[in-house]
Amino acid sequence: MPQNKFLKFLLLQQPQKKESISPRVAGASARDTSGRVVIESVSPEIDGGHTAIKRIIHDWLEISADIFSDGHDIVMAELLFRASDSGGWHRVPMHKGDNDRWSGRFELDRLLPHFYTIEAWRDPYASWADETRKKIAAGRNFTVETIEGLQLIESVRQTCDDQRFKEFVARLAALEKGSWAQTELMLGDSALALMSIFAPRSALSRYPLELEVRVDRGTARFSSWYELFPRSQSGDACRHGTFEDVMDHLPYVRDLGFDVLYFPPIHPIGMTNRKGRNNALVAEPDDPGSTYAIGSEVGGHTSIHPELGSLDDFRRLVAAARAHGIEIALDFAVQFSLDHPWIREHPEWFDWGPDGSIKFAENPPKKYEDIVNIRFDGEVFPAVWYALRQVVLFWLDQGVKIFRVDNPHTKPIPFWKWLIDEVNVIDREVIFLAEAFTRPKMMKKLAKAGFQQSYTYFTWRNTKSELVSYMVELAGEMGEYYRPNFFVNTPDINPYYLQASGRPGFIVRATLAATLSSNWGLYSGFELCEAGPLPGREEYLNSEKYEIKVRNFDAPGHIKNHIRALNRIRQENPALQDWRNILVLNAWNDNIVAFAKLTPARDNCVMVLVNLDPHNAQECTYEVPLWEFGLPDHGAIEAEDLLLGIGFTLHGKTHRIRLDPRERPVVLWRLLGRAQAEARS
Amino acid sequence: MPQNKFLKFLLLQQPQKKESISPRVAGASARDTSGRVVIESVSPEIDGGHTAIKRIIHDWLEISADIFSDGHDIVMAELLFRASDSGGWHRVPMHKGDNDRWSGRFELDRLLPHFYTIEAWRDPYASWADETRKKIAAGRNFTVETIEGLQLIESVRQTCDDQRFKEFVARLAALEKGSWAQTELMLGDSALALMSIFAPRSALSRYPLELEVRVDRGTARFSSWYELFPRSQSGDACRHGTFEDVMDHLPYVRDLGFDVLYFPPIHPIGMTNRKGRNNALVAEPDDPGSTYAIGSEVGGHTSIHPELGSLDDFRRLVAAARAHGIEIALDFAVQFSLDHPWIREHPEWFDWGPDGSIKFAENPPKKYEDIVNIRFDGEVFPAVWYALRQVVLFWLDQGVKIFRVDNPHTKPIPFWKWLIDEVNVIDREVIFLAEAFTRPKMMKKLAKAGFQQSYTYFTWRNTKSELVSYMVELAGEMGEYYRPNFFVNTPDINPYYLQASGRPGFIVRATLAATLSSNWGLYSGFELCEAGPLPGREEYLNSEKYEIKVRNFDAPGHIKNHIRALNRIRQENPALQDWRNILVLNAWNDNIVAFAKLTPARDNCVMVLVNLDPHNAQECTYEVPLWEFGLPDHGAIEAEDLLLGIGFTLHGKTHRIRLDPRERPVVLWRLLGRAQAEARS
Repeated sequence: MPQNKFLKFLLLQQPQKKESISPRVAGASARDTSGRVVIESVSPEIDGGHTAIKRIIHDWLEISADIFSDGHDIVMAELLFRASDSGGWHRVPMHKGDNDRWSGRFELDRLLPHFYTIEAWRDPYASWADETRKKIAAGRNFTVETIEGLQLIESVRQTCDDQRFKEFVARLAALEKGSWAQTELMLGDSALALMSIFAPRSALSRYPLELEVRVDRGTARFSSWYELFPRSQSGDACRHGTFEDVMDHLPYVRDLGFDVLYFPPIHPIGMTNRKGRNNALVAEPDDPGSTYAIGSEVGGHTSIHPELGSLDDFRRLVAAARAHGIEIALDFAVQFSLDHPWIREHPEWFDWGPDGSIKFAENPPKKYEDIVNIRFDGEVFPAVWYALRQVVLFWLDQGVKIFRVDNPHTKPIPFWKWLIDEVNVIDREVIFLAEAFTRPKMMKKLAKAGFQQSYTYFTWRNTKSELVSYMVELAGEMGEYYRPNFFVNTPDINPYYLQASGRPGFIVRATLAATLSSNWGLYSGFELCEAGPLPGREEYLNSEKYEIKVRNFDAPGHIKNHIRALNRIRQENPALQDWRNILVLNAWNDNIVAFAKLTPARDNCVMVLVNLDPHNAQECTYEVPLWEFGLPDHGAIEAEDLLLGIGFTLHGKTHRIRLDPRERPVVLWRLLGRAQAEARS
Repeated sequence: MPQNKFLKFLLLQQPQKKESISPRVAGASARDTSGRVVIESVSPEIDGGHTAIKRIIHDWLEISADIFSDGHDIVMAELLFRASDSGGWHRVPMHKGDNDRWSGRFELDRLLPHFYTIEAWRDPYASWADETRKKIAAGRNFTVETIEGLQLIESVRQTCDDQRFKEFVARLAALEKGSWAQTELMLGDSALALMSIFAPRSALSRYPLELEVRVDRGTARFSSWYELFPRSQSGDACRHGTFEDVMDHLPYVRDLGFDVLYFPPIHPIGMTNRKGRNNALVAEPDDPGSTYAIGSEVGGHTSIHPELGSLDDFRRLVAAARAHGIEIALDFAVQFSLDHPWIREHPEWFDWGPDGSIKFAENPPKKYEDIVNIRFDGEVFPAVWYALRQVVLFWLDQGVKIFRVDNPHTKPIPFWKWLIDEVNVIDREVIFLAEAFTRPKMMKKLAKAGFQQSYTYFTWRNTKSELVSYMVELAGEMGEYYRPNFFVNTPDINPYYLQASGRPGFIVRATLAATLSSNWGLYSGFELCEAGPLPGREEYLNSEKYEIKVRNFDAPGHIKNHIRALNRIRQENPALQDWRNILVLNAWNDNIVAFAKLTPARDNCVMVLVNLDPHNAQECTYEVPLWEFGLPDHGAIEAEDLLLGIGFTLHGKTHRIRLDPRERPVVLWRLLGRAQAEARS
């Protein structure tokens, strides 16, 4: 077949023919990957296809690409996709937009990685029909064209067994040869559809990469985290808290609207070099020690600190939480107290000095004398990797499916890739949150390696320009693989802003976190506006990492009502269940940030105005995004104040507002397009 | 070896191990390509490495990448490069800048494609030295560290035969064990240098792609084209011009400063359906026909139109041009008059209708009845490809090394890739210019396929915002592979702007083309301000494509002096020999475009101000880029008016200018940094 000869030549130049051309020489593929139909600039595609993008189950994944060929022939394209357990491709047609940009989409309907690629080809029959129609419209003779069309159909008929095609040919044959009726039938939609199915695809090109999309459950994108230390939940400074106490606290957490309850390490705590209160180098006899100094003579990473309860208690807690609609998330901290059983059982997994002493964790000249690190390479590989994997699988067996990973940036990236893949193959619902506060490229790389969620720089983004530029970055290419989780505070981070802001600042920061990011979290005490610092430091005084803390959760001045409202509003408004859909709005005051979040279908829109100044009333002129609803600048839109529960109408695009931190530092409004307003009334 | 075991594991996950993982599954490589040291976001890298970038001989190619690893260990990186005829890599160290961005560079010293990639690794000895220095600075005991350092050195000594290393070890051994002198020696630069050479590289990563850079001779980036029809050079409308006449015209072309002289097709012209003047469907008996209707009974693409002269005359012309410092460029137009010998010799290479008639070129409903297209696929492949290749090689044998390719976008991209590669393997000096005025993606793809130069949209970019945004696009990612050639007019394009602008407009457009783009060209008559249009069309009246034209090259109102000056200024100022080095300057009038071109070393800077309005004087405030020379806003800089040849001083950043099209529509100034000003005085 002549056509095959051409294809064969092109295929010879394709990198998949490994025997002839090394695929690692990009120059070779630069000459060879493009066939007569060009497919390039595929989006999304990160790092030349080396990094998988991320979506959640039931998302529709939209793919676009530049697709074109030489000359005037009609080009067709299909999006190919498959789940990772399937070798066969599903196909959907792609559609051409402006400037040779094509797009197509498919639903991610299984909790599995999916792959996608693109095929495109020249369609001789559609090209014939297009040219013939133009000639007919120009009044030109088309006898020759009719014969050519018949020849194209005849060439397919010789090999096509399809009944529909045979019927079409029979209808065609029944008409007078060369008649107008025959031409009309050949130019009709059904003829084009049949030929597009059964005619061989001319100059077929396949995009040389199969790109991957990781599919996670919805919680990976939309979650509200509450962090607490179980040992602090007794309500009595003299009694170590237990899992039973935590169970008693579940209604409180649920009432505030949180759906993930995260514990710092719950494992036995080492005695040797135990840290005292406020990170003191020497502990008093009754100091409980740092929860991050994991391991004692009673056990290590798969054991529970005895004073918290038993493994059975823990399982009951997981179940009780689930009954409250709350998932338990555990800390996965790969570090070891000097009393950790692995040090006795596998001394070779750790670093020892030439003097026979174990090497402490350090970041010279700083030295952490209560913990040691494990080795990842050399002769300990892969034993240590499998041992750590077993830790995660152990807790997975106890019903834990969310792991917050401590300091992943100090362990090898390949380890995280491997671990997350290994665990997700066993259970696709497991979510890992990367707790890295480090350099930007490493933060991103951990997400690329597979972490389903990531901590962010949010606590250090305070001004309007900082917040806006950070959101633009997170919503851009990073949005394909990096799912931010905006924690307003952590046991390690007592933000300077909150140390000086008073209660309005807590409302501001909670509102920003809960509306800018679909994943957000707080560490217990935030709702009580706790902010007492180690003087001059971004840390808490009397850090709960080193002592048991008792709180009065009804202390005056709390913002529990606001947090409860935020989580309710997040649940009720799909626009707040993503972070990439932000529309920054004009607000002519650098202390006031204004933005809207919109669903792709524009059927939900939440508009937020925040006075970042916790001390002074600020006012500004701002814009309501009427244009997003197809409304003119003088149009009117129905709105609903989501905090106050009252409805009103905004007339015109430009308005003025005053936000007084003592009365209302923030507003959250739902804007109702005509369809929603009508559905509501 | 334990370290090897780890490396082996990582390598197992690398795509080059083809037996285990298909490199075409990007998802698989997403999990596997990154080792413990991450190398990503390499720049330049186009289309995930599928498209080669372009440079010219003796360019220094600068490569940058994000490189980092976990934890605190010191990372090292090398840039690897090789010419295409060499299997072995040269290596240069890369240096770390801000934000984990590393860079390195190498000189492209051979006229061959080069490949480049990156390796990076953790350096245990440098890490040891870094930590030990910090501990010493903090006053900590470093006995253990000294022993560890000795152990690292000892492990290398066991396998290292290098004399320098042996001497270093001997010096070390001669010192008192554990003494400060020993530690000091171990922390010294020579110890670090020796260990960096001879210690095994820990966690070595190789970037998975080998990226290609095409290297062309300088003319590919810097050239000044003059286009003429040889048959019009007799100076007598009744006599067909000859190559002898063109030889007489060479001093004129050289005097204007052009170095490429380009001819539309010089081949025999068909008789059947010959076009008449102004594209008339029927020719008069004495009409010479379109030069693009190639082929008659006397020959085809490798023949010369008899009235122009013989092949010998042509060879003499090429030599005479070379003696004038001018290169001849030929048109490569893959289209055929009905009388082309190939139609008789190889009828199967062409499309025939079912009625036995040959198919004309067409773009329905338009039909081109004097030419036919050749087939590229089916049974004609690869015979036609090789026949066309032979055409190019034939003219290469006659000394032609520049080909302007007519309408490449209507022929298959894979053909151009193949052809350009084939020809460049035979002669690396050959340059192909793509004459495509089509959709943006196809324009870019032709450049990606290998064309060394490309026509542009310049003739349709007239306003300040159009010009600026186009230059920004050309200087951005496109700058890596797309070399623009700014033609101010062509036989097919008589720009509307020039039809109405009068002489000042010709000065404006010539100045823009010659200073914005390092490759520029004009078609004969432009220097005489010819602009008579086919009424309402962007075409010339009495198009030279269809008739012999006689010009008075001394007609009053010409702009030859300005063009001569432009080409001189381009020769004398390296800043004008590139297009990517543009700096758009503030000029507060939308009719005045202001920009500077600067060499990377800032040792040449040309500043240009152009009044785009050819009818009215315009004035504006504008900025002189003092900051590029490290000068404050109130600083002063020496300048030289390159058109008038006078020197002056500009005091301060902001100035005001009036540009009157009748006096000076444009200014070109050289700005002299202190070093140049001193060298000059």
